[in-house]
Amino acid sequence: MLDLLEHIRWEGDALVILDQTLLPTETKYVSLRTIDEAWEAIRVLRVRGAPAIGVAAAFGMYLGLREGRSLSFPAFEKLAKKQGEYLCSSRPTAVNLRWAVERVQKLIRQEKARSVSELVDRLLEEARHMIEEDNAVCLNIGRYGMELIPEGARVLTHCNAGGLATARYGTALSPVYAAVQQGKRVAVYADETRPLLQGARLTAYELQRAGVPVTLICDNMAATVMAQKKVDLVIVGADRVAANGDFANKIGTYGVAILAKEHGIPFYCAVPLSTIDLKLSSGEQIPIEERPGEEVTQGFGKQTAPTGINVFNPAFDVTPHKYVTSFITEKGVINPPFKKNLSNLFKTE
Amino acid sequence: MLDLLEHIRWEGDALVILDQTLLPTETKYVSLRTIDEAWEAIRVLRVRGAPAIGVAAAFGMYLGLREGRSLSFPAFEKLAKKQGEYLCSSRPTAVNLRWAVERVQKLIRQEKARSVSELVDRLLEEARHMIEEDNAVCLNIGRYGMELIPEGARVLTHCNAGGLATARYGTALSPVYAAVQQGKRVAVYADETRPLLQGARLTAYELQRAGVPVTLICDNMAATVMAQKKVDLVIVGADRVAANGDFANKIGTYGVAILAKEHGIPFYCAVPLSTIDLKLSSGEQIPIEERPGEEVTQGFGKQTAPTGINVFNPAFDVTPHKYVTSFITEKGVINPPFKKNLSNLFKTE
Repeated sequence: MLDLLEHIRWEGDALVILDQTLLPTETKYVSLRTIDEAWEAIRVLRVRGAPAIGVAAAFGMYLGLREGRSLSFPAFEKLAKKQGEYLCSSRPTAVNLRWAVERVQKLIRQEKARSVSELVDRLLEEARHMIEEDNAVCLNIGRYGMELIPEGARVLTHCNAGGLATARYGTALSPVYAAVQQGKRVAVYADETRPLLQGARLTAYELQRAGVPVTLICDNMAATVMAQKKVDLVIVGADRVAANGDFANKIGTYGVAILAKEHGIPFYCAVPLSTIDLKLSSGEQIPIEERPGEEVTQGFGKQTAPTGINVFNPAFDVTPHKYVTSFITEKGVINPPFKKNLSNLFKTE
Repeated sequence: MLDLLEHIRWEGDALVILDQTLLPTETKYVSLRTIDEAWEAIRVLRVRGAPAIGVAAAFGMYLGLREGRSLSFPAFEKLAKKQGEYLCSSRPTAVNLRWAVERVQKLIRQEKARSVSELVDRLLEEARHMIEEDNAVCLNIGRYGMELIPEGARVLTHCNAGGLATARYGTALSPVYAAVQQGKRVAVYADETRPLLQGARLTAYELQRAGVPVTLICDNMAATVMAQKKVDLVIVGADRVAANGDFANKIGTYGVAILAKEHGIPFYCAVPLSTIDLKLSSGEQIPIEERPGEEVTQGFGKQTAPTGINVFNPAFDVTPHKYVTSFITEKGVINPPFKKNLSNLFKTE
């Protein structure tokens, strides 16, 4: 695989993360040694992206519990509960944050036979294991996805579902990295992704650093790039996939899907199985977060719309499954009918 | 009609314009008394929008010639040629700028029987007449277009083809103003229109000021607003219309047209006849200007993409005629087949 950033890693006695709030102009790592520092890093988005937040939270729990070696088990378990609640308060809506905290708490209950001191070591081991797990999932997504990328392909992507959003290899970008590693020439068009510009700030940054040719466009230029026959396929990530294949992703994804269909361009969604929620029958059941209008009116530090203007700022949209060519998962490429084939993924486990 | 801004007008001895570079946060008028001041105002976009630039250029020619009352006719004509070239250099690609300058120069040739002093007065009269002409065209576009806007309609528009782009009433927004004047409840969704945010800075500003309910969205949210059935029709302007109905407009228009088609929403293009160029058989012949990448990477003073990143920044796109429901012109609403019906507009003159 290409030499991708290890932007979240354990070094000595600290969790070292790339401070994503300084991107794209400054590449600076910060060392987190306390749960307070981990809380703050998640809160202000120094680390972001669902899988990356999960990993940071697991290390955060370790940081918040490593001073507890001499506690009794009940006192330790109580501390783990308190620290978990605290960590989850950093970004209340982040599903992976709570998932990682609960995984650590469950591990503590399961391994209560050990001494508390051993348990503390076990927590660090578990957090490091979560990085390896995420890497394995992303590498498999890349391995299956790269078969869909022909030599010389131009790939359009939206938002950042790259290495910076996971532990290292990304979901939507993993097939690109794998294809390049395989020796294929691949170029990427990155939608800037208003309002928060994750495409411009993060996707463009990590592709440039990895040596993959990337061209930045405004979201409203995707249609023209497609009409000019400069895009061979689209790959995006997802925040949540319903049982029928409808999926939620960063606002703007749905529009890209329609444009791809209109131009006859394959549209792929790369996701780990953990993102597929069979309890939701369709995309209509996925709640869509609305965010403050200020992200739109003064996102660049400068006020760019009249004071008092009404703003609609949904953070995500839902792409109906009919626009999806295939899902790329760590267990293979899933084609329609999605309702049957997505649920089969879980039956074989 | 609603009390719309007279953002470009003659007062006493000066051309008074609203300084659009200060919008949306500051409403400030500046008085232009010399051709140099007019040149600078056009150059730095204090006045912008094709029809508004044409009007400003006509006044600019008067400002540059009014000191020439005592010249001989040949010297005056020579000065008019020199001042015209100078004024055209402010924005070399603005078609209406050259058109207005040539109109003034032609008038001078036609009326050479007059004294030069009379001719100078005639130039001011002509410039003021151009405001009236533009108002008449826009009001007629409004009159025909308002019939397409049902009571309670939600209209989506892209970029600014409003009063601020013309002398007063706008093209795409004129039907909205006329419908509101008629007593209809009409609300507008304004695409912010990256990279230069004319939707956020100008369209949102002028609609808010006119008391028309307006909601600002990022360009990539239009698909979701349509999917939520919050848009009843789309109206946009155009920079150039080909004989077959293909048209060029601000980048992003083509994508909106595809989204409208996919959601079964009527898509209208409001244009004065002066924008229709029957010499171009199709949109493929319309040249598309590419602008500097910095507009995308640091459009608001802050760098939001990595240094050295490759950027594709086309200023316009071409929407094929198959996506257009109708054109709204000052001579009526034009339905398909456009090739026949657009050319008929000129035959009846």
